[in-house]
Amino acid sequence: MPERVSYRVYYEDTDSLGVVYYANYFKYFERGRSEFLRAHGHEVADLNARGFGLVVHAVSATFRKPAALGELVEVVTSFAVTSAYRGRFTQRVERDGELLVDGVVDVVCLDGSGQLIEMPAELTALSGP
Amino acid sequence: MPERVSYRVYYEDTDSLGVVYYANYFKYFERGRSEFLRAHGHEVADLNARGFGLVVHAVSATFRKPAALGELVEVVTSFAVTSAYRGRFTQRVERDGELLVDGVVDVVCLDGSGQLIEMPAELTALSGP
Amino acid sequence: MPERVSYRVYYEDTDSLGVVYYANYFKYFERGRSEFLRAHGHEVADLNARGFGLVVHAVSATFRKPAALGELVEVVTSFAVTSAYRGRFTQRVERDGELLVDGVVDVVCLDGSGQLIEMPAELTALSGP
Amino acid sequence: MPERVSYRVYYEDTDSLGVVYYANYFKYFERGRSEFLRAHGHEVADLNARGFGLVVHAVSATFRKPAALGELVEVVTSFAVTSAYRGRFTQRVERDGELLVDGVVDVVCLDGSGQLIEMPAELTALSGP
Repeated sequence: MPERVSYRVYYEDTDSLGVVYYANYFKYFERGRSEFLRAHGHEVADLNARGFGLVVHAVSATFRKPAALGELVEVVTSFAVTSAYRGRFTQRVERDGELLVDGVVDVVCLDGSGQLIEMPAELTALSGP
Repeated sequence: MPERVSYRVYYEDTDSLGVVYYANYFKYFERGRSEFLRAHGHEVADLNARGFGLVVHAVSATFRKPAALGELVEVVTSFAVTSAYRGRFTQRVERDGELLVDGVVDVVCLDGSGQLIEMPAELTALSGP
Repeated sequence: MPERVSYRVYYEDTDSLGVVYYANYFKYFERGRSEFLRAHGHEVADLNARGFGLVVHAVSATFRKPAALGELVEVVTSFAVTSAYRGRFTQRVERDGELLVDGVVDVVCLDGSGQLIEMPAELTALSGP
Repeated sequence: MPERVSYRVYYEDTDSLGVVYYANYFKYFERGRSEFLRAHGHEVADLNARGFGLVVHAVSATFRKPAALGELVEVVTSFAVTSAYRGRFTQRVERDGELLVDGVVDVVCLDGSGQLIEMPAELTALSGP
């Protein structure tokens, strides 16, 4: 089941073209990933405190329609482990069910010294279909 | 009655010192002002579309304690008109009732061509004690 | 010839993992595109004022190594028109010649009412090999 | 002698009102403080690595005129120690010598465990008139 979370668009999210600045959709994506993990019992800050962290290795996204000031957007996030060392978040931003931006975010797991480690069992357990 | 709204602290809000970056508390303040207006029936985007906008003239803030990744902060906002041309938002960021940051934000109203105008009656009507 | 421009990493660019926040590399990319255009005689603000604008349709990027506070990063940008309606910026962020992040950014041109238009001749003229 | 450093205004700095978003002037201020320290032989990242850091305790600023996309703004920064535990940066943002935003930023020094410490001699040595 994908996780859904909603955010209001504020001035901070927009730029002088009058709509949400393209890089800020990746902030929405990150919020969606954090809330996906929280919904499954994992706090990002706790993972970090325990000495490992999910970091983004690659992203791709397509910007189909813009969101504007005051609108409510919904971030939809699902997750699948794609190898021993790699997970993929599939994410999209919607407004009233209409697709605005969709993308994929490939993550890896690093230990406290920044070394690549296998995806921990507690995270592979979250892998969806 | 001050307006209260809560936000989660995400990676985007933090910096390499491990806590929320100081300028980002002003984003929280702006969200608080937008939600104050929305709670009183005014959408910022609608005000802009009707040809005027509240803009910040001056701010001051004191940073008492930091917020960190994953924490839930609450923005508390009240408003008072201070002259025909000036309004003041008194705002603070709290965590579990503890004061983190407090400040005041003085705003003026500009018309579509950027000229200073008197605070519209619909906004002066929101002025608290 | 790709265009090169350098930026210092400031606190605003970092997050609590101690390095540059992933979405902020797309800010560096955007700076690189603006400077590419400026180096070829086009100001983004002027294009907008004349009623059209380049907007991002799709991006992809791979994050290979992180940049940290105080480091100087270099954004390297080249451009090629890929169809009557589409251009592609190929971009990377380097530090002392070492590749940190690379990606492609596909742009389209919209007129003042947000309608897709053909890439103007003045921009297709910038297309590299 | 105040330190001067120039920045281009990019899309990331603006909002849907068409000018620089108010909180982003505090990013310019922070860049100015980092460059003030660098100009005097101190790298912020080095200070942090040595176990202490300057953190902002209070700010105030007045927004007099807005900056817009593509403009070049100059951040002017001076510094004075105001007590054993406190320093004050006096900062402004100009455009072609015209004052846009001015403010003061009061900083304190924290050690690695977040405890307030006296301003180190190497920083009090930077105190201007």
